[in-house]
This record gives sequence, structure tokens and C-alpha cells, in this order.
Amino acid sequence: RRLLPLFLGLFQGALLLFFALFVTYNEPSTQVEDTNLANQVYSTFPFFQDIQVMLVVGLGLLLTFLPRYGFSALTHNFLLLNFSMQWALVLQGLLHHFHDGQIHLDLHKLLISEFAAVTVLISVGAILGRASPCQLLVMATCEIPIYLASDWVIVTCLGVLDVGGTITIHVFSCYFGLGVSKALFSTAQQPLHPKETPTPSSDLMSLVGTLILWVFWPSFVAVLCQPGDAQHRAILNTLLAMSASAITTVVASSLLERDGKLSPGHLQNGSLAGGVAIGVVADMAMPPVAALARGTLSAVVCVLGFRFLTPLLGRKLTLHDQCGIHNLHGLPGILGAAASVVAILVASKDTSGSQPSQLSPVGGNASEVVEGQWGGRGVGGQALCQAAGLAVAAGASLLAGLLTGAVLRLPCLARPPERLCFDDSLYFKIQDQAE
Amino acid sequence: RRLLPLFLGLFQGALLLFFALFVTYNEPSTQVEDTNLANQVYSTFPFFQDIQVMLVVGLGLLLTFLPRYGFSALTHNFLLLNFSMQWALVLQGLLHHFHDGQIHLDLHKLLISEFAAVTVLISVGAILGRASPCQLLVMATCEIPIYLASDWVIVTCLGVLDVGGTITIHVFSCYFGLGVSKALFSTAQQPLHPKETPTPSSDLMSLVGTLILWVFWPSFVAVLCQPGDAQHRAILNTLLAMSASAITTVVASSLLERDGKLSPGHLQNGSLAGGVAIGVVADMAMPPVAALARGTLSAVVCVLGFRFLTPLLGRKLTLHDQCGIHNLHGLPGILGAAASVVAILVASKDTSGSQPSQLSPVGGNASEVVEGQWGGRGVGGQALCQAAGLAVAAGASLLAGLLTGAVLRLPCLARPPERLCFDDSLYFKIQDQAE
Amino acid sequence: RRLLPLFLGLFQGALLLFFALFVTYNEPSTQVEDTNLANQVYSTFPFFQDIQVMLVVGLGLLLTFLPRYGFSALTHNFLLLNFSMQWALVLQGLLHHFHDGQIHLDLHKLLISEFAAVTVLISVGAILGRASPCQLLVMATCEIPIYLASDWVIVTCLGVLDVGGTITIHVFSCYFGLGVSKALFSTAQQPLHPKETPTPSSDLMSLVGTLILWVFWPSFVAVLCQPGDAQHRAILNTLLAMSASAITTVVASSLLERDGKLSPGHLQNGSLAGGVAIGVVADMAMPPVAALARGTLSAVVCVLGFRFLTPLLGRKLTLHDQCGIHNLHGLPGILGAAASVVAILVASKDTSGSQPSQLSPVGGNASEVVEGQWGGRGVGGQALCQAAGLAVAAGASLLAGLLTGAVLRLPCLARPPERLCFDDSLYFKIQDQAE
Repeated sequence: RRLLPLFLGLFQGALLLFFALFVTYNEPSTQVEDTNLANQVYSTFPFFQDIQVMLVVGLGLLLTFLPRYGFSALTHNFLLLNFSMQWALVLQGLLHHFHDGQIHLDLHKLLISEFAAVTVLISVGAILGRASPCQLLVMATCEIPIYLASDWVIVTCLGVLDVGGTITIHVFSCYFGLGVSKALFSTAQQPLHPKETPTPSSDLMSLVGTLILWVFWPSFVAVLCQPGDAQHRAILNTLLAMSASAITTVVASSLLERDGKLSPGHLQNGSLAGGVAIGVVADMAMPPVAALARGTLSAVVCVLGFRFLTPLLGRKLTLHDQCGIHNLHGLPGILGAAASVVAILVASKDTSGSQPSQLSPVGGNASEVVEGQWGGRGVGGQALCQAAGLAVAAGASLLAGLLTGAVLRLPCLARPPERLCFDDSLYFKIQDQAE
Repeated sequence: RRLLPLFLGLFQGALLLFFALFVTYNEPSTQVEDTNLANQVYSTFPFFQDIQVMLVVGLGLLLTFLPRYGFSALTHNFLLLNFSMQWALVLQGLLHHFHDGQIHLDLHKLLISEFAAVTVLISVGAILGRASPCQLLVMATCEIPIYLASDWVIVTCLGVLDVGGTITIHVFSCYFGLGVSKALFSTAQQPLHPKETPTPSSDLMSLVGTLILWVFWPSFVAVLCQPGDAQHRAILNTLLAMSASAITTVVASSLLERDGKLSPGHLQNGSLAGGVAIGVVADMAMPPVAALARGTLSAVVCVLGFRFLTPLLGRKLTLHDQCGIHNLHGLPGILGAAASVVAILVASKDTSGSQPSQLSPVGGNASEVVEGQWGGRGVGGQALCQAAGLAVAAGASLLAGLLTGAVLRLPCLARPPERLCFDDSLYFKIQDQAE
Repeated sequence: RRLLPLFLGLFQGALLLFFALFVTYNEPSTQVEDTNLANQVYSTFPFFQDIQVMLVVGLGLLLTFLPRYGFSALTHNFLLLNFSMQWALVLQGLLHHFHDGQIHLDLHKLLISEFAAVTVLISVGAILGRASPCQLLVMATCEIPIYLASDWVIVTCLGVLDVGGTITIHVFSCYFGLGVSKALFSTAQQPLHPKETPTPSSDLMSLVGTLILWVFWPSFVAVLCQPGDAQHRAILNTLLAMSASAITTVVASSLLERDGKLSPGHLQNGSLAGGVAIGVVADMAMPPVAALARGTLSAVVCVLGFRFLTPLLGRKLTLHDQCGIHNLHGLPGILGAAASVVAILVASKDTSGSQPSQLSPVGGNASEVVEGQWGGRGVGGQALCQAAGLAVAAGASLLAGLLTGAVLRLPCLARPPERLCFDDSLYFKIQDQAE
């Protein structure tokens, strides 16, 4: 009971100390730098706000499909976002931006930390409703440094192209979350909890969350692209992929169910699958049909996953995946990574002779721009790197997730009793919903 | 049952083929073009996102006032938006942008297609809850080409000024929807369905939708204006008109009801009436009081329509208008068109001698800029054109709507049985809401 | 019953007349001015839209925690925003912008009026649910001119720095609202009304409102800052302060309750406290840790206020504060003002010798820029001014609120009977919610 405020309070205290000692703002010493900051406000801030809406409101509402757990879902999502962002800010500052004894804060660094926090918010989906806030915070504490290491290996060492975070964020966090879930609930298959079934009104709120995510997703994918042609293309590709996903989800869901009725869960997730898959190649010069095809395929894969794979994993591997993150983030992420290999091979043929820089690769998270022919790596090399990056993201995160899940089983981290799972009244002074 | 996925699947397949053959991105060949695309991202994209929020979240929530049909309303709205946008993209590409065997896609073309899709979303309001998804899709398939034809006649041939789509979008889609409704449900007056009455919580969600639409409406009106003075004025005019509408709606609704209580339906619609009416003249140089007056009048007309005209049309013409689109889009649209005639006549007097270009007409949908005195047409000519445009939009769409409605009566398009109208459980695997 | 439409109708009529006589748009006479307006659209409009979302949707939803009063809360908030904005536009136009017999309207003036309207929306929180719409409108009519006078004294005469409106808006409106509440309900302590207790679903909607406010708050604080470094810093400071608030609220709330459960009310308000406190110093050059510390402290103060001060004030002073505006706006506002004194004293020491203009004060509401060392006033003088501004804002508004509250007791302003407080069905044709 007292662990949560203690843990959070200590963290906040340490953060204050750290900021007091090491963090400062970039003071512009010249007119040029001042204009540069103004430009950052106008070019990055609107995207940043869009992403905040996605994470705080959109994702939060998406998780309210558990009818008696809505307040917890929204609050835990909100708390984890803030905690993880601050934690990532500290770690990233120490790792990358520690110059002359100081970390110079700006909007771009906050944005990068926010991207790190997204991994936690996704992973939590696997164990939503069955874990205590303390467990979630410990999980976030472990996941952020592992993500930073994985991101460093994938983007900096391997030079993987992944402007929208498909591999580094979605695939990584999916398998991390599944690992945690496996280690935490390994003993037996979880029976269906009576409070787990969505009601019409909780399904409606969750769909509103999906729609908010759907609308602002292009900002998430395009924010780190190079301004101009690449960013414009990333926005269009994402719009096309998500539009195709929306329609394909309806087709797939209605074909799979015997009575032709659509499943709310398919709609809430499938409509977003295209956005996950497109991230890895969003800014590459590829024909628009490729974006449509990715959107279509990823929605099919996502709905098939919900219909067949999740029950199968639950039966065979006793793997519990509450929100179906494997269907929304794992499968479309793998699909996107595979598609990026194809895109690179195809693109190089198209532009072999004339304009090798047409592909204008922005580099992993825009941290560096590879010039010319994949930084002298050659087309085959780059394609291999993409595959290797996928393997690292999936493998390392699964392993790390299993270890983290084992830590979460420590008795002091008070898992909620089965009877009080999926129930707001365990953590909040909320009027009881006796039906 | 199987018709919906079949139809949608075939459409999506054909779309993929079409994109593969004919659609490409604009590759910038020079530095100047690249800067131009970057500017398009910064100047158009925020407006585009605002409009997406309006259509996907705002309009979707506005339609959830039917308490057991909220999930269907949101989903059908979302599905129709995507379907219609893609369909409009194809048709508009073939008609207007087919150069050297290719359609060069950019954000602006997507925006124009989104505007076309809006017409479908508005028209659907007339038959919401009583039509199957298949019927809605067939309706969208018919409406988009008719809209494009009507838009071409009104804007390109007649040279009507209508930057915010009052005539081309609102009036057109309203009478199209009414025509469909008339042809589809012609036999008898629809009795009040037990599931048709809003509950307090569905009314609340619907009001939230209204407020989202209200907030972002200026972006919808101003996105196609010329940057600078005209766009600034369009934003201010829309803000003033909508503010006046909000207050006037409360006055009118409370005066009309015997016990002085406000009707939720009036608030949900009347507050937006000013935005419909202002579109046709938003960027013209007129005094701010004109915007306030338009907002006030349109709200009065809208509330009066709900109170008297809709019941009258129901009784006399057996015309069914579920969401009252005639009151929100039809009457304020006609008012706005009439006001544009006045504005043109007045403006020309004010500026007769000195600055003829003060009015700075942007042209229909900003597709071309008329120079000087109405392109040599004279003030009277332009005023006549506005009236003619209104007549075309209302007349042609009503006729086309009647024909489309007749098509929708085809037995294969499975209209839902009366008992299951306004019910999510017909199309979605949703827990039953037995009270 | 008939008073509301009469009052609003007359107001709207007078407004039309006023606009017809005195208000016009700024016509750009040169190319330079046109570009300037275009810049205003791109730099101010996105912030303006964010603020509209906050006030119309975010604040509206935050007030829906009363389960049967949600429709009224949203509608009254919406109506008061429009009414107050128009009223402030008129008064501010007459006071400040009346040149050559005309008021030249632009987006910036609308924004300033919107800021004035915010004071009314905050003050209403003290008497939410127990006052009639007529009383609220009369209150708005009184509060706007008093706010303008107070703002003039604080910013123009005293030269107080308060870019985010901490003192001029939050502290002012809080004590005004408390004064009104005291004068209106002075007779006895209000017993707990049966309809006053939030339900799980109303608490959820209210939390969504909080999250929307939380996301867009940086726009509110930063919109009036000077572009470039100052605005960038204001955004970062606000983000840091609100992030610290969110985490601290969880710590404080969970420590204060005996069973460690979080109170929804604490979360809904405490998470925003940092945004209130940071406004007064957001754009000053201070280390980032100061923003974190302000966010932490203000959340602690806010939660403590809910837990101890509000019940105490209710018992000892029979002071009724429905939404706890004293905890969200009063206490954090005072904290922020006190912190600004410290910041000024500290900042001057840091930069004493070398760069006196590093602090780059933007001036109260960016209306004038103080050059060099606090306009020749000296550090101590400026610190004193901040304290004096706080005293004026709190003292004058409390007095004015008491007077306004006395006016609201006029019998013609029909206060709702106790039995029908907190009930939508008194003002809206809404289906009864018999449980």
C-alpha cells in the first residue's frame, strides 16, 4: 500500500536533485540560434501536441474497454507516461547529451523521451488489469534502459532505417510486454474474468480512443522526418495505409465471424495496424500503392491474429495478452520490417543508374543521415541490417521481458488478488458499481 | 450478410490496382519544389488534421445521440469517410489531375477528396439508423461522382464563390440526403421507434461531438482560402458567426418551448448553423457585423426548422430526416447563399470607385482566382451566378438523391427489419443492453 | 423563466448594433501587412485552437463530474465562454483599441478577450450546480469589467510580470468566485446534496477533461510569449511543471488517504496545479529544476487544500466551493506568485554583472516589453510589484465578488430550488434518469 507513494516520491526527489545539478536550458547566444528555437517551436510543437493527445487521451481511452477499470486504465497510462518520460530524459541525457557537465534541454529531447515512454505504454497492454501500479512502475524502470540500449544497437550500430519506430518501438515493446506477461502469469491459463467483458458504453469509449489515435498517427510517424519531401511523403503514406486498414478491417472481421457481425475489438485495433506497419518505410520513395498494400495486409494480419493466434497462444503457451498487443504491434511490426527489406531491394533497382539518393533515407530516428548508397553498405547489406534489427528488437526484448517479469513476481510488489482484478475500486475512492 | 465484405473487398482490390497503375508521388526535382512541399506541410497539414478530428471524432460523436446505435454511428461514419475519400481520390484524379498517364498525389488532393467525402457523411444523417451499411456504401458510390459533377458545374462553369463549401457541400448533400430518404421510405410516415429517444448520456456524448465540431470549424472554412488577409478574415468571420449562433440558439430554443427548457437537439445543431451559413462569403471583405448577423439568423432558422418544419415535412410529405440535416445544412446553407448575393451587391457599392479588388474573391474552392471585377462578369452577373449555383446544388441533388434512393430499394441491399433499426447488435458483436 | 432569453437576446441585439457602428477588420494596405497577417494565422492560430479545445471541451468535460448535471455543465460553460468573450471584446475594444472611431478586429484581440472569458469560467466553479443560468450571466456581466480594471492595474500600472495569467487570471477569478459563493450562500453550510456524488462514469468523463486540459496547457501559457527563446522556454517549463504535478498528485493523494486509495478529485485537479503555478514565471530564464519544483509543490498544496482546507473553510466560514477552485487556482496561484518573487531576486544575482537582459521579461500579457533592468525599477522594486499585484488580484476580486454575489441574490434571478440543484432536467428537455 505504502510502496507506491514511497517509490514515486523517492523518484521525484531524485529527479529534482538530478535536474538541479545537471540540467539547463540552451541559452541562445546569437540571433540565429533564437530564430532556430522559434522554428523548432513552429515546426515541432504542433506534432508534439498531436502526439501528446494520442498518448494521453487516445491511448488512454482505447484502454478503457474494461468496463470497471476505465479510471485505472486512464490514470495508470497517464502516470506511466510521465514517469517513463522523466526517467528516459535522465538516462538519455546521461548517455547522449552530457556536454561540459550539463544536459541542455530542448523540445526535441523531450520528444525523444516521449518516444521511449511509448514502449512502456504499449507493453503494459499485455498485463492490463492484472498488475498493480507498483509492478507497472518497476516494469517501466526496467524497460526504459533496455529500450535505450536496444535503440542504440538497432539504429546507431546496425544503421536500421525506422523513422516511425516500427521496429525500435512497436516490435520491441510488444515482445517485451509478452515476456513480462509470460513470466508473471506463467503458472496457468487465466480463466475469463467476469469483469473482463466490455459493455456497449466501454466499447464506445474505447472506439473513440481508436479514432483519436487514427487521426493523429501521421504526426507520430512524420515528426522525426526531414522537413520537405520526406516528411510530406511520410504523412501521405501514413494516411493511405491507415485508410486502407480501416476498410480492410471491416472486410476481414466480417468475413471471419460466422454471422457476419463485426467484432468491436477488431475495429479498435485493426484500424490502427497500418500505422504500425508503415513506420519503418514511411519516408522512403516508394509508390503510393505500397502504402495501401501495407495497410491492407497489416489489417488482415491483425484481425487474423485476434481471431486465431491469441487464443492459440493462450492455450498452447499459456500466454496472456490482455489488449492483444501482439496483434496490433507485433504482427504488423514484423510485416512492416519485412516490407522494408522488399522496399529497399526494389527501390535500389528502380534508381540504380540515375539517382541513388532518391530514397533519401533519414536514418533510424533521424539521428543521422546516411548519405548516398546506404552509407557505403550496399543494398543487400542494408536489407540484411533491417532483418537483423528486427531480430534484435524481438529477441532481446522477449528475453529482457522474461527477466523483468520474474522481478515483478517479488512478493513485495503486491499483485492484486484475482477477485479484485479489473476493478477501479481497488485503487480509487470510487463509488461501487453494483449492478 | 456477405455482401458488405464482398463489396468493400472488391473496391479495395480495384483501388490497389488503380494505384499501382496510375498513382505516384510528386518527386521534387529542385530545391524550390522541396521547400514548397515543406511549406505545404506546415501551412496545410494543421488544418487537415483539424478537419480529420472534426469528421472522425466530432461528427462521429454528434451522431451517437441514438442511445443503442452509438457504435454503429461512429463506425459507419468512419468507414464511409475512408471509402468516400478513396473513391473521390480516384475519380478526381481521373478527371482533373491525370497528366502524362499518372496522377501525382499530394496533401492538397487528399484534402479535396476529404471535402467530397463530407457530402456523404452529411447525407447519411437523413437515414441514420434505418439503412444497412451496404445501402450506405452504395449511396456513397453514387453520391461522389454526382458531387464532382455538381461541383464542376457550380464552381468551374458558373464561377460561384463558395470558399467554405456552403453551396457545393452543405446544400448539395442536404437535398441529396433528403431525396434518398424520400425514395427509400416513401410508403408511409415512420412511427417513432422506441430506441430512437436519446438518453441523458447519449445526449451528452452528442453534445461533446458538437463542441469538437464547433471548435475546429474555422479550419474547415479557412483551409482553402488564400494565405494572408483572406484567410485571416475567414477565420475571424467563422469565429464570430459561430459565437453568435451559440448564444442565439439558447435564446431561440428557450423562447420556442412552452416551459422555457432548452432542447438538446437544438443546441447540438443550432450552435453549428453559423458555420454552415458563413462558408460562402467567409473570405470576402465585409464588415464583422455581417458575420454576426449571419450566425444569428442561421441559428434562428435552424431552431425554427427543428420546431416546425421537420414535423411538417414528416406529416405532409412523409419525409423522414433522422438527424435534421435540413435544419443544420439545408436552411442555413440557403440563407448563406442568399446572404452572399447581398454581400456582393453591397460590397461592389462600397468599393465601386476606388479599390475593385478589395473583395479579393478566392474563387469557388480556391481553384482559380478571379481577377478584378468578378472576372469581367459584373456585379449583377456574379450575384445571379450565386443564385444559379444554389438552384443547381439544391435541384440536381434532390433529383439525384431520389434516383439513388430508388436504387437503394433493391432487395439485395438488405434493409434492416424495423424491429432491429437503431440497434448496434445487428451489426456488431456487442453485449446486449437489456435494461 | 423568460428572463434568460430576454437578457441574452437583448445582449445579442446590442452587440450587433455595436459591431455595425464601431467594429471593422484591419484592411492590409500593403504587401508587408498582408504577410504579417499570414504570419499571425500561422503563429497564433494553432495556439488559439488549442486554447479553444481546452476551454470548450476540456474544461467542459472536467465540470461533468456531477452525474446528473453534465449536460448543464457543458452547456453553461459553452454559453458563458461565448457571452463573456463577446462582452470582453466590446469592453476591451472601447478601452484600448478605439482608434479613429473604429475598433480594428484581429485574431490577437479575440485571443485577449478569450483570456478574459476564462476568468468567468473559473469563478463559476465555486457555485456550479446551485446557480441558475441567469445568475451566471449576470455574474459574467459584472466580472468582465472588474477583470479588465484589475488587469490594467496589475499589468499596466504595477508592471507585474505574468505571461501565463497566474495572478491576473487564476488568482483573480478564484477569489472572485469565492466572494460570490460566500455572498450567495452565506446563510448556512450547504448540506451534501444526494445528486452531488460523482458516479464512476461521470468521474471518468471528468478525468478525460483533465487530460485534455493537461495536454494543451502549454499552449495557454506560451501563446503570448515572445517568439523564439522565451516561447520555447515557456513551453518546456510548463511541460516539466505539469509532468511533476501529475506524479506528485499520485504520491500526495495516496499518502493522505488512510487506505492508500487515490481520490478522483485529487487527480482531476492536482495534475493541473503545476500549470497554474508556472504561468507567472514561465518565460523567465530560470533553471529547469525550478519548473519541476513549482509543479511538485503546487500539486502538494492543491491536494492538501482538498483534504484539509476546503472542509475547514466550509465549517468555519460556511464557504461553499463546489469544484474546489481555491485548491486548483487559488493556492497554486499564490504559490506561483511567491515563486516569481524568488525567481526575480535569484535571477538578478545570477546575471548581475554580465547580461542584464537575459531574463527577457515579456511584460504582463506581452502588451509591453520592459527593457533592461525591470524598466529602471530595480530588482527589489520588481519583486515588490509582484507581491502588490498578488494582493490586488486577491483582495479586489474578493471584494468585487462579495458585491456581485449580493446582486445575484436579487429575487428576480430565480435561484433553483434545493431539490432541483445539480439536475439537468430543470433546464433541459432531457429524459429523466430515474435509477
